[in-house]
Order: sequence, then structure tokens, then C-alpha cells
Amino acid sequence: MTDFAHRALLPAGLRDMLSPDAAHEAGVVERLMRLFAAQGYDRVKPPLIEFEESLLDGPAAAASAQTFRVMDPQSQKIMGLRADMTPQVARIATTRLARAPRPLRLSYSGQVLRVKGSQLRADRQFAQAGVELIGSDAAAADAEVLVLIGSALFELGVEGVTVDLSLPTLVPALFAALGVEGEIAERLRAALDHKDSATVAEIGGAGADLLQSLIAAAGPADRAVAALQALPLPPAAAVERERLAQVVACVRAGLPDLPLTVDPVENRGFEYHSGVGFTLYARNLGAELGRGGRYLAGGLEPAVGATLFMDSVLAALPAPRVPGRVFVPAGTSRAKIRELHDQGWVTVAGLDDGADVAAEAHRLGCSHWLGSDGLIDVL
Amino acid sequence: MTDFAHRALLPAGLRDMLSPDAAHEAGVVERLMRLFAAQGYDRVKPPLIEFEESLLDGPAAAASAQTFRVMDPQSQKIMGLRADMTPQVARIATTRLARAPRPLRLSYSGQVLRVKGSQLRADRQFAQAGVELIGSDAAAADAEVLVLIGSALFELGVEGVTVDLSLPTLVPALFAALGVEGEIAERLRAALDHKDSATVAEIGGAGADLLQSLIAAAGPADRAVAALQALPLPPAAAVERERLAQVVACVRAGLPDLPLTVDPVENRGFEYHSGVGFTLYARNLGAELGRGGRYLAGGLEPAVGATLFMDSVLAALPAPRVPGRVFVPAGTSRAKIRELHDQGWVTVAGLDDGADVAAEAHRLGCSHWLGSDGLIDVL
Repeated sequence: MTDFAHRALLPAGLRDMLSPDAAHEAGVVERLMRLFAAQGYDRVKPPLIEFEESLLDGPAAAASAQTFRVMDPQSQKIMGLRADMTPQVARIATTRLARAPRPLRLSYSGQVLRVKGSQLRADRQFAQAGVELIGSDAAAADAEVLVLIGSALFELGVEGVTVDLSLPTLVPALFAALGVEGEIAERLRAALDHKDSATVAEIGGAGADLLQSLIAAAGPADRAVAALQALPLPPAAAVERERLAQVVACVRAGLPDLPLTVDPVENRGFEYHSGVGFTLYARNLGAELGRGGRYLAGGLEPAVGATLFMDSVLAALPAPRVPGRVFVPAGTSRAKIRELHDQGWVTVAGLDDGADVAAEAHRLGCSHWLGSDGLIDVL
Repeated sequence: MTDFAHRALLPAGLRDMLSPDAAHEAGVVERLMRLFAAQGYDRVKPPLIEFEESLLDGPAAAASAQTFRVMDPQSQKIMGLRADMTPQVARIATTRLARAPRPLRLSYSGQVLRVKGSQLRADRQFAQAGVELIGSDAAAADAEVLVLIGSALFELGVEGVTVDLSLPTLVPALFAALGVEGEIAERLRAALDHKDSATVAEIGGAGADLLQSLIAAAGPADRAVAALQALPLPPAAAVERERLAQVVACVRAGLPDLPLTVDPVENRGFEYHSGVGFTLYARNLGAELGRGGRYLAGGLEPAVGATLFMDSVLAALPAPRVPGRVFVPAGTSRAKIRELHDQGWVTVAGLDDGADVAAEAHRLGCSHWLGSDGLIDVL
């Protein structure tokens, strides 16, 4: 069969991960989870499927079109296959762990499935790994999550990590103060999304100058915060601006090497966020490494979290180091094999006493074979 | 809300795994996968869902009633959520890796979902971890898999591991030689399944004595093999017996401490096996730790594999050691926090400069807090 035919055995957007990629992904996920656990983020594991009504509750309803559904013959109710783990972790925090002391720190990793691939991510199944910090409204909480994720990516060896901060609550606060609403609000929102300063000037009325200044303020965080601080914002919008400045200052203090940019009018993908949102990128990688931000868990409790998309994280890392393989002839003692493992070798055992050991080692892709006097190079 | 109401948020048989269980399970899975990888078992990761026609191909059709199905809007075809990973790994071996050198050693771990829980396993989602050794017909291959799994369970610290060997090809070979078929074969099969020696005597005809001797031969492996070797088996059945004796001898040589029993008439759950099958148990644990045996991958290629059920493996292990937690006041340096991590502590950071550190440490369940002169016990 051709490789094409082999691939065609699986539905589009779903794939078999082979060696060494599958082991590499699992190793990177566990390394992340250890880093999260060291900072007190307790690992939880929600199920792959749950009732649609709880899986798509509140803001999570946005994932409805991306969610596969199955009928549960036991309860006769519809269940959904999770397309995102964040709502599940928020559910755990606000129900089973409702009485656990706050702030509550949770971490998670697992597979998610989506009905359709996107332009940036053709895969319909990928792994997530993330953290949620629930029950604190402090800017220090936003910063803790960003510093944790940023330093974890540094530690993994991802090069050229950058964070784009957005403030999806700023424009709504400004619209409310300026009395912008209805169709004009929608058109302005679309113009801001496209950084279309000309249209903003044309239809922005009394707020046009301010909104154009917001578009122009986008850029490296220190400069953007300074530009925003020079603007005459109405009180509610000024509160949002102050919060952004605090988060930037806290992240700077915690992880000075993490490049931060700010886009004060960016809103897409952050429609349900209640404060600073952020997207993580790596140099030369088209897809997002992850995203996160502040939201209300269960619609009530202040929370901030971040999720890494493992396919992107893996793509941003160098290829894994593959350990050397030693062919060990049939009958080699367990003690000798264990010694080789302790030295970092992978062993491949012969099953047939009479085989030509050197030929078998070569055929099976081993770099060495075990002779009576030690390891011998495969020629 | 009561605990009952919290549980009721999830469908029966599905659950949230919390701390420390979720981290424990992941740690044990990764330890197993490292042990498998050290012996040359390359990790693969098939998708959670694939086309029903490939997922339930051949012997895997037995899992049909346990498989959730979803429609793929992209291909307009039915996909199944895997209820078992072994058929997926066999598919990978016989298609994408058809040209990889044999024997091919593959390992895997992941979640599986089943439509209904069973009496022994109420959970409808659980994790599997396993190995497949494909392309060798040698008894040494059966033994390699059994020794690998047995020694892995020893290394994890599972106490009282035992292996029940079965030989599902023996009775069919005997029936064929004796000309037993049709309804009488079915009734005899059922009687053998229930170790119902009286019925076997009554309806067994010319084979009654032999079949009763097979029932009586069940027990510790050395004794059972000796008892079988004393029986006047027809040639095809004698070949099966010889194979069992070889596998027992190889496992004894490789892992003398692994207790083996043999039940020569056991067939249930091994209907599709083409040679020795086995079930792993732990003392005082009702559920199986795992199972495996010899089969034909893709209906053609000799293969042997084993799967561990992680819920059972976890239940057979002592509770995980939970690392101590240190509360570190807001503003503690990253260098100091890293030092604590290197010493094996989990740190829980304060978010508020002005908080009462000792009180916060206590409230957050920490055993210590970090004072200016070092760690202080929480009273």
C-alpha cells in the first residue's frame, strides 16, 4: 500500500503519532506538568466526555459547533466530547472543589477533539496542557500565570517566545462611557478588529480620536502602556488601563526576559474574558503556542488561566534526542541488560539463539551489539 | 451543593480524577512507558476516534457493542471512539509500519471509552498502557512480553502479582481431532467454561476422560504442564501443549519470581487468540491488572501483546507520597523558589504583600512557610 493509502485509513485531521514523536510529546507534557506541580498547581483529570449541558455551560457554549456529540444510552442524554479542557477545570473548581481554600491552583493535560480543523491547525485532535488560578482578583495572579507559562517554555527550550497582551474589557468600557451602541458599535468593533483607522475616524464621532490613539498605541508593552497612560480615558476605561499596567509591571519583575507586546483593541478570541488576555507565540512559528487570560469561573469567581497547545509547542522545539540502541543476543542476562539501561541505552533483544548477531543488529536499526567483551559498533 | 449532587453532574461511570490521584496515574503510566521504551518498544499514539470500519475490523468487531459512535461531518462516515487500543496498534503495525523490520516492538498508552461499565469495572473511561511484539512466532516472544509486564509491575511495587495462562487453541484442536462439533460442541464448551466435570462426563463421549483430565490439570504451572504432558493428546493438541510448556519454561528462566498458573480449558475473553493467552492479577484485588496473549495482527501476522488497565494497577499500589508544601510570601525571589523545588518542595506563592504569612500557610494546607531565616513549621 502507498503512504497515501495508509494515511487515507484515518479521517482527515486525525493521525497516528509514531516514534520518536509520541514519546517526545508525552515527555514534554510531563515536564510541563512537573513544573506546574512544583508551584502548587494540583493536577486534575476530567473525563473525555460529559453531559453537553455541563460541558457547554455559559461561555463554553462558544465551543458548541466544534463539539462532537454522542448519545448516552444509560441516561438517554446527549454527551459532548470536549473541544477544550478549561471549562471542565472551571467546573471542577466551582463544584467539587467549591470549598477548597482560595486561591485554588489546578493543572491539567489531555486530548481534545474538534469537529473541524482550522486554517492554522489542521489537526482535529491535539493535546492541551495548562493551569488555572481560581479565586484571586489580584494583578499578581495574572502575572503568576504568565510568568509560570513563560518560564516553563524557556525551560523546555522554546526559542523566541513572545506574549501579546490584550485588554478586551477596555473598548466596551469606552463605548459605554461614550454612549456608543447598536449598529454603530458593531461597525466600530469590526473596524477596530481590522485596525482600520480610516473607518474609525469616519464613524467614531466624539470617540474617534481616542479610538485611533488606541490603535496606534499597539506595540512593545512599555511603550504601549506609556502611550495609554497619556490618553484622557473615562474612569471605567482608566481602571482597565491601570490593571494592564500593573500586570505588565508584575510580569516584568517576575520574568524580565519575556518579551511583551500590547494590543489594546484586540478582542477576537477573548469575547468572554473579564480582564487581560494573552496569546503566546514563538519566532518563526505561524500557530499560537497557547493562550489564556482572566475570566469568571462558573460565571462568578475571578480566575485566570493559560493553555498550551502541544502540537505547536512540539513544532517550536528541536527534534528529540533519540537514545542509542544495542542489540542484545538471546540469553543475555537480565542484570547485564539492566546495566545497559542504567547507562541510558535502549536494548533490543534477540529471540533466536542461532541468529547472526551482527546481521540482526544491523537489520533492526541498532547502533551497537553486545559481544562477550562489551559493545561493538554496527558497521 | 452536596457531594452527591456534584457527582451527579457527570454521567455514570465517568469521573473527575483529583489530586493526588491524577498526578499519580500519569506518573505510573510514564514510568511504565520508560520501562517499555528501554527494551526497544517504540511509543505510538493513535487517535481517540477513527473510522468504525478500521476500528472494528476483524476480531476487533467484538468491541462493537462497547463503542460510542459519532458522525464525521467532513467524510459523512461513521467514526468510533476507541474502546481498546490494541486493534489500533495492530493497524499501525500492519499498514504504516508494514515495511519496518520484524520483530516490531510498539508501546502505547491512552484513554479508552466504553458504552457500558461492567460488574468488575464500573468506570466507562480508563487508561490503558501496553506493548505489542509483532512478526515473531517464537515462544521467546510470548515470554518476552510476559517477563516485561511482570517485571514492570514488580518495579512499580505491585504486590502479589500472579499470571493465569490459558491455551484457547487447545480445546478446539481436541474437538477437531475427536470430531466434536455443532450443538454438542457448544454444550461441552459451556460445561468446560464452568469447570462442570459432571456434564463433561455425561456428554463428552469418547473425549470425556481427556476433557475431565484437562479440567483437573488446572493449577500452578509446573504441576499443570506435567499433568498435561502425561495425557495422550492427539497431534494438533500436543503441538499446543508443547508450545505452552515452552512459554512456561522461557518465563521461568526470565523471571523466576513470577507466579504462574495454568487453566488449560479457559477460553472466555480469548476467543480471538491464536496461542497462549494470559490474565494478570494482584493479591486482594478483584479486577484484572491486565491481559494479553498471542494473536494474528491484521489477520495474518503472528503477534503477542499485553495491556495493563491503569485503574486496576493504581488500585493495587500504595497511596502516592505527596511532597511537602511550603508557603512562600509574595516577593520571594525566583532563585530561592527554584532552590526549594530542587530540594523536592512544592511552593505555594502568596499574592498579597500584606497578608499574615503564617495564617495563609495554614489556610492553604502548607506544612511550612518560608521566613527570613529559612523554613518554619506550620503549627
